[in-house]
Order: sequence, then C-alpha cells, then structure tokens
Amino acid sequence: MTQAPWETKGEHCRKVLSNSLNQEWLLPLEDLPPTDRLNVSSFIETCGRLTSRELEITHSDATYLVDQMGQGKLSAVETATAFLKRAHIAHQLVNFATEFMVEDALKAAAELDAHFQATGKLKGPLHGIPISTKEHIGFKGRICHSGYVAWTENIAQEDALIVRLLRQAGAVFHVRTNEPQSVMHIDCSNNIYGTTVNPHNRKLTPGGSSGGEGASLGLRCAVLGIGTDIGGSVRVPAAFCGAYGLRNTALRNPYKGVCLAGGGQESIRCVISPLANTVKDINLFQKTLLDLEPWEEETSLVPMPWRRVDPMQPEQLTIGIIWDDGVIHPHPPVIRALNEAKAKLMQAGATVIDFEPYDHQEGIDIVSALYFPDGAQTQKQILAQTGEPIAFLTEWIFNKAKPEPLSITENWAFNVRRDAYRDAYHKAMKDRGVDFILCPAYIGAAAELGGGQYFHYTSIWNILDQPAITFPTGLKVDPAIDVVEKEYKPRSADDEREYKKYVPDTFVEAPIALQLVGKHFRDEETVAAAEVVSSIVQS
Amino acid sequence: MTQAPWETKGEHCRKVLSNSLNQEWLLPLEDLPPTDRLNVSSFIETCGRLTSRELEITHSDATYLVDQMGQGKLSAVETATAFLKRAHIAHQLVNFATEFMVEDALKAAAELDAHFQATGKLKGPLHGIPISTKEHIGFKGRICHSGYVAWTENIAQEDALIVRLLRQAGAVFHVRTNEPQSVMHIDCSNNIYGTTVNPHNRKLTPGGSSGGEGASLGLRCAVLGIGTDIGGSVRVPAAFCGAYGLRNTALRNPYKGVCLAGGGQESIRCVISPLANTVKDINLFQKTLLDLEPWEEETSLVPMPWRRVDPMQPEQLTIGIIWDDGVIHPHPPVIRALNEAKAKLMQAGATVIDFEPYDHQEGIDIVSALYFPDGAQTQKQILAQTGEPIAFLTEWIFNKAKPEPLSITENWAFNVRRDAYRDAYHKAMKDRGVDFILCPAYIGAAAELGGGQYFHYTSIWNILDQPAITFPTGLKVDPAIDVVEKEYKPRSADDEREYKKYVPDTFVEAPIALQLVGKHFRDEETVAAAEVVSSIVQS
Repeated sequence: MTQAPWETKGEHCRKVLSNSLNQEWLLPLEDLPPTDRLNVSSFIETCGRLTSRELEITHSDATYLVDQMGQGKLSAVETATAFLKRAHIAHQLVNFATEFMVEDALKAAAELDAHFQATGKLKGPLHGIPISTKEHIGFKGRICHSGYVAWTENIAQEDALIVRLLRQAGAVFHVRTNEPQSVMHIDCSNNIYGTTVNPHNRKLTPGGSSGGEGASLGLRCAVLGIGTDIGGSVRVPAAFCGAYGLRNTALRNPYKGVCLAGGGQESIRCVISPLANTVKDINLFQKTLLDLEPWEEETSLVPMPWRRVDPMQPEQLTIGIIWDDGVIHPHPPVIRALNEAKAKLMQAGATVIDFEPYDHQEGIDIVSALYFPDGAQTQKQILAQTGEPIAFLTEWIFNKAKPEPLSITENWAFNVRRDAYRDAYHKAMKDRGVDFILCPAYIGAAAELGGGQYFHYTSIWNILDQPAITFPTGLKVDPAIDVVEKEYKPRSADDEREYKKYVPDTFVEAPIALQLVGKHFRDEETVAAAEVVSSIVQS
Repeated sequence: MTQAPWETKGEHCRKVLSNSLNQEWLLPLEDLPPTDRLNVSSFIETCGRLTSRELEITHSDATYLVDQMGQGKLSAVETATAFLKRAHIAHQLVNFATEFMVEDALKAAAELDAHFQATGKLKGPLHGIPISTKEHIGFKGRICHSGYVAWTENIAQEDALIVRLLRQAGAVFHVRTNEPQSVMHIDCSNNIYGTTVNPHNRKLTPGGSSGGEGASLGLRCAVLGIGTDIGGSVRVPAAFCGAYGLRNTALRNPYKGVCLAGGGQESIRCVISPLANTVKDINLFQKTLLDLEPWEEETSLVPMPWRRVDPMQPEQLTIGIIWDDGVIHPHPPVIRALNEAKAKLMQAGATVIDFEPYDHQEGIDIVSALYFPDGAQTQKQILAQTGEPIAFLTEWIFNKAKPEPLSITENWAFNVRRDAYRDAYHKAMKDRGVDFILCPAYIGAAAELGGGQYFHYTSIWNILDQPAITFPTGLKVDPAIDVVEKEYKPRSADDEREYKKYVPDTFVEAPIALQLVGKHFRDEETVAAAEVVSSIVQS
C-alpha cells in the first residue's frame, strides 16, 4: 500500500523517535500488558525492570531529590537514568513521547555530577531534576512541528527561553511529549505519532493539549513537566492523569520559543506552565523560574518575582464552590468529589460557600470568538498544505469561530467585553468574600479517546486570566457509587450530548480531579491555597 | 451669517464653559495683556488680582500644601479658591479650559475642611490638592466628547476611576481642560473651543494632546494635572509649557472612564498619567494612586504597588544620551540643552555616554501602523457624522495609517515585530550598561500653532512601553545663542521639512525640556532618577 504524501512527510519524525530510544530499556513485546488491560498506572512498579532504588527515586519529589543530591547520596546520572528507564516503558504503555534525549540528558547529568564533585555545590534549585516538555517547546536543532504534518521540517533555531533558564538552575531535559493536531484539543492524537492514551484507563484520553505531559507525570516519567495552556491544556491532562497542573496568570512565565500558529494574537494569551506530582514542586518550579528574571530577555513579561507566601491555614480560607457552570452539568463522579471536598474543608475549619457562577455563557461566547478571530484561517492553511486528515475535534473547535475573520474593530469590541467580564467576575468574588473558587476541572473524571469537547470549566479562567490549579482528589471513578443521575433533565442539546457521555463502566478507575482558582496575579496565593486544600481533600 | 450644523452642535459646550465661569474672578478685557504680548507666563503674578498669599499658595507644591493643611495653617477652601482664581485669568490668557467646576470644587474643599476640623486628620495624602483633568476623562453627568463635535451629547455615566480614587485621597477637581480634534495631535485645537496657546509664547502651541493640561500646569492653575499619553500626549505639553510630565508603563494607572475612540485596541496602549511642577509631586501622585489599589476594580491592571525607591546619587547613574534619533534632527536649542545637561551630569559624578539609538525607524514604522490599524475608520466615521472641518494635523496623522484596515493576522504580525523590537532595545541598553536614557522631548523647544507633526522622540517609548518623564531644563530659547546650523544637510524630505521649522525668533522664550527614560515597569526608578537628573540639569 502506498503512503499518502502527508504520511510520508511524518515518517522522519517517527524515525527520530524510534532512533532516540535506548533499546536496552525497552520491554520485549511479550512482557507488556495485554492491550485490553486498561489500567497500567502501576505496571512499571511490578514489571521488574526498575530496581527498588530506581522506583524510590522516581517516586520522590524535587525537593527530596535535590536534597539527596546536595548530601552526595544521589547522583544526577542515577536520577536521570531512573526516569529515562521509566519513561521508556511508559512510552510502550501509552505512546506519550515524541523524542527521547537520552544522550543529552545523561551528558548534562554527568556535568552536574562533576560540578558537584568539584565544588561541593549544587548548580541550582533544580540540580539534576528531570523535566519533560511538550513538543512545541523548542530545542535548538530539533524538529518543532506543533502537531502539524506541514511543520515537520521546522527546526528550532534556539532553545526556548524557559529551557535555557531552567538548565541554568540545574534541570535536565530528557523527553519531549505528544500533543494533538492544532494543539487545541483536550485530547492527544495527531497524524504523526498517533494517539497517546491515559495510563489509568487506556480507553480514555490523557487529556490535552499537553496530553503527553499528563501521561509523563501520571506515570512519573519526570519530576516536573512543562506544557502550555490557553484553555486548559495543562490543567486538563494533569487532571485526567492524576497529577497537578498550574495555569499561571499571563505575562509571568517566559513564553519565548514556543512554536504555535497565530503568533501575535494577544486577546487571549497562551501561557507556559508546570505539571508536577506535588504542589510543593509547582511552587519550586515557579520560584526557580522567576528568580531567574525571564523579563530581562522577554521584555513583554511583568517583572514580578515569585513572592513568598506564608503557608495558609484552613481557617484563613473562604472558598466558593461552583457545582455547575450553568451551561454543562458535571458528571456524578465530579459531584461526589465536590461533596466530599466540601465536607472535609468545612471539617478542617475553612469557610465554604456555594458560589453562583457569574454568567459563564458570556465568558464562553467571548473565549470562543477569541481563540480564532481570524476564522482559524491560519490553522486551516497549515493543514491544507499537506492535506493531512483533519480530526473531528479540530473541525469541531474551528467551527466555534465564525468562518469569516473578524475585522479589527470587531476584535476590539470583544476585548472590551472581555475586560468588562473580568471586572464583573472579580467584583462577584469580592462581594461574596470569596478568595478562591473550587470547581470541576472538567465535566467528568476524563474523556474517552477523541471524545473531549467541552473544556470551559478550565477555559473560563483563561479568558478571566485568573490562576488555577487542578489537583487529584485521591478518588477514582467507581461505577458502583457514581451512578447516572436518571432524573437529570438536560438544559440544552449540548448539555444532553455531554451528559450522555457518562457511562459509568467506561470511566472505571479514572482519577477524579478538582480545580482551585485564585485571583488575577495572585498566583503565589493560589499555589499556597492549593497546597492546603489538596492536602485536606486527599486526607 | 448662519451657522453650519456642526457649529451649532458645539454651541452648548461653549455655553457650559461660559456658564461655569465665576464672572467676579475674570479680568476686564482692558486689563488683559495685548494679544501681541506673547509671553504671558508671569502676567498673573503682576496683574494684581491675586493676593500675595494666593500667589504663595499657587507657587507651592503638593507636599508643602498638604503639610500646611495638616498643621491647620491653610484651608482647602482657601487653596481651591486661589487656584480657581488663577485658572480663570489663565483661561483668559490662553483659552485652556473646557469647563470649570467651581461649585463642586468649593463644596468638596469645604467638606475636607469640616473633616479636618472634626477629626484633626487629613482625608488623605492629597487632601485639598486641586487637580485639573483633560476633557476626555469622565465626570458623572458632564459632557465627555473627546474633541469630536459628534460626541458633544455624550454624558459620562460615572466618574472615571482615577477621579474616584484620588477624591478618596482628598483631591479636589476644579477645572477640565482642552484637547485637539481626534486627541492625536501634539497641538491643542478643535472645532468646539478653538485653540489653546502656549503661555510662554502665544504664537506657539502648548503641545498636545493634553495641551490644556500643559497650559494649566505651566500657569500653575493646578498642583497636579491628569492627561493621557499614547504617543507623547502628556510629556509633550509638559515639555512645551515648562512643567513635568510622566508616561508610566502601561497597565499600572487606572484607565477606566476615559472616553477615547477605538476602545479595545491593545497593540499600543494609551496610558493616563500626571503632569506636575515638581518630580516630587509626580511621585506623590503615583504613590497615592497605586496605594488605592486600582486593580481591585480595573482588573486588567497589574497589581503592583508603587515601590519605595531610595533617593539616587549621581554616582549610581549610567545615562545614555540620544542626540538625534537618526530620523529627524533636533533643533539647536535642544542640542544646547543636551550639551549643558551632559556637562553638568558628568560634573556631578554621573556616568554619561553617547547612546546610539536602536533602529528608531523600525519603531516608528510599527507605531505608525498600530495607531490606526483599522485605517482610522473609527475616527473618520465619527468626524463624518457632523461634517466638522477636519484639521490638517488630523488628516496628516490619519494618513500615516494604510487607508484600508489591516487584517487581524497583519495586526498580529506587527505585534510580533513590536515585541522583538522591545527585546532588542532592552538588550541594547543592557549591553551598553545604560540604566536611563536622556533624549529630546521633541525636535525643538515647542511647535508653532498647528505645526507639530513629528512626535517620535516621545512615541518611541510608547511602542517600547518604557516609562519616561519630560522635565524643564531651566533654559529658554535664545535666538542670539540658538542659531541655525547652516551646515546641516537634511537626510530626507521629512527631516528637511522639520528642520526648516526652526526659525529662532519664532521660538523666543520657549522653555527647553528634555526627557529621561527608564526600563519597562521601572517607573519608580525612573521617577527617582528624574528627581536627581532634573535637579542637576537645572542647577
């Protein structure tokens, strides 16, 4: 069978990936779990390929690992090797990587070890910490295609600024990860590498668009991950995979060197931000990054250092719960998680009130118009260059924009509406005395492969430019408990479509996440609150 | 002679103005200086209408006045009255006001006095300080037309946020001031009130677009003034009139309630910022304003308080001088002022180097495209509504834009160029070790009425989003010294046009200003540096 030209064009990317694998670290096919084993989240622990020490390393957070390296009890090479080995098997399980950087990572780790041996000092606060990165974050001399077959010849001219800065802090970059076509799905499938699946249930998507990062953190292939988020693309995969994902306020983290169609679009800004397996690591990531003053190179950033915030006590918190955004009703597992969270938070002494969402339909109308104010012409032209098949979710999201580009003055009018909406939302929070909002991360625990459409439980905070973190509740979908609310009457065709997606058995063992939201530029407070809230909710 | 409809439409604004005047404070026509007396800057001091105490009050800065009021030695009513009286005569001299608010101001002042008498405390850091405001800053229930005849029916629904906040701090608003048609000239003439002239030389413009504010501060009709600046509209009138004008970094001061065509345009942001007669008052204004947390209502602002910066010593400063932007050559008075400033700053111990401007033509190309990315259709439609005559300077600035609106993607491409230019400029400053740039505020000391065209010595810092202050050097144009450089060979037709505008006798006694520029978001440092630099330059 001959390949279509677009298929041929992606071939060299697949070769780069397969050549980047260390064959010795791969399991023979017969040792892999059968494809109908859905939950592979603990497979690596039991497959016998990682030593107990390697398992211990890969289950540790950054603070612990850096501390061990600072005491000379652990080397950066050993750390990188453990995570690389783990990531290789993980890739066999969920197809999450676009490229391993084994040689570079081990070389960097060896240099860090030499530095430590020579000086007795760590290179920086992330000394020896392996970090995975979403594919469209540039690495000098490597392909950067942003999920488009047409861009597979694009070679990054330099490392992204965030990569350069974190390397100064000692970070080790070892694996690049998958993303969906157009980088605008909460799913993770493209015509180059195919589909990444969810480690907790391989019938489900790991989320997206930073879906490879979700899988990476969910399977502990990296201590930290870096994704991008313009509608939930960091928070949703973190939520679907049982990890933590931050969407910081725009203009704080350095974005330079991310390859994304539509550069210069500023009505709603894409941010670059971390995934991790603890809130503490998210805080460490942010502090390390902003201590390096990215605004000295990327001058559009606000030169605001990461402020130290005292640990919060539950008694200090007033949390408003959004149970339902008034547009699409969440699925039973999410409602259960919110109920349990509410009870535990109140028990712990926090003030918890029900928060009436402020006209989310208005926010959704604005955000939907502003994702593709050019009628997605930019993206459509890129797709047309190769004729690669256009995914259902691509078509679907493009159709949210008007087919004809907005005029500049129409775009301005949306900017005015956006700012008015932001002001009104902020006022609604203040009027209720609410510091943080607790809400779903998504309508359900996860979406089926190719099935994630409604992502406005996260995108609403993008249009509002408020910081938000998704975190695991520790709960998982249990069909015996999370039964369909038979009496629910959908409020619209869209609501019905989304509600019907909840078939309990389909989502079995999917981790249930929630989202904590703070105020504009109060990223530090939001992270501090997430630390205490997630810990209470998981208790 | 019958009036054209557009003339009739502006009539009620002129009535509002004339009805707002307290006739008792006006000089009889015969006591006014003859129209051919050009310099009226000290007329008020000698006309005999203000008492010596009133003259003392109106020559004081905010810090002194507030201190006197805090000691009970001065009342707010006495202060407001002194400035109102002065402003009335000033208006007769230079036609700078659009509306006096005598009753409101005296009532507010009386309330402040009552508050002080009852509590022994001042209301806030601007207790009793009279502030003039540019017309397009809204006052509830008052006309807000932004220099367009078509908008003379527009009544502001609420006070601008900056007005509400500063009132909380004790400020008294007593007079609103003139601006040019389209609010995009460095001149001050419109079809409603006619032309505002420069108090130092009435053949010259006070600058613009906050030209009424320039005249207000130049004649000490207010302690502080508020203007708006998207290309120099605060700094140029301050410079032309012998006052100080700040252009702060965007997204710091509250802009809500300014009436300007083209709302939602964000590629280059208009800022609202102060004029004053001392740097100390500019600092007081900014600190007071940001201490009131405007971001709690206008959430697009960056919640960054006004930081305290230690007074700077000249030895700490590395100042780069831009002698010529490489596009339009400055006039001899400005070169003289730069030379004298350089010598004094070096004498005082500062490090002063010549700074090669970084490709200003690129900045000018970007800013010119971004002022009217819609081809000025928005503004042209407003003008067409009444058929009011379109001024030469309006036509001229609109023609800088392409006649057809840019597409959204063309606008994005300019945003990308703008950010690259900002990064490159910042790097150029860092590479040279330059903290602040000293440069012309304008090509000359001022412009003739209707003659100010080239404003890119100020607009370049708008596109770069760097804070900048214009300040008086203490020098004035002296035709005996500031002779034409006969040997100068213009580098272009534009350069020739601008250079020929320098006819020494025309600009006699115009104050010569300079501009000090800092880095993005380093407003506090820029103000602190301006305090020491202006004081050395004026010594």
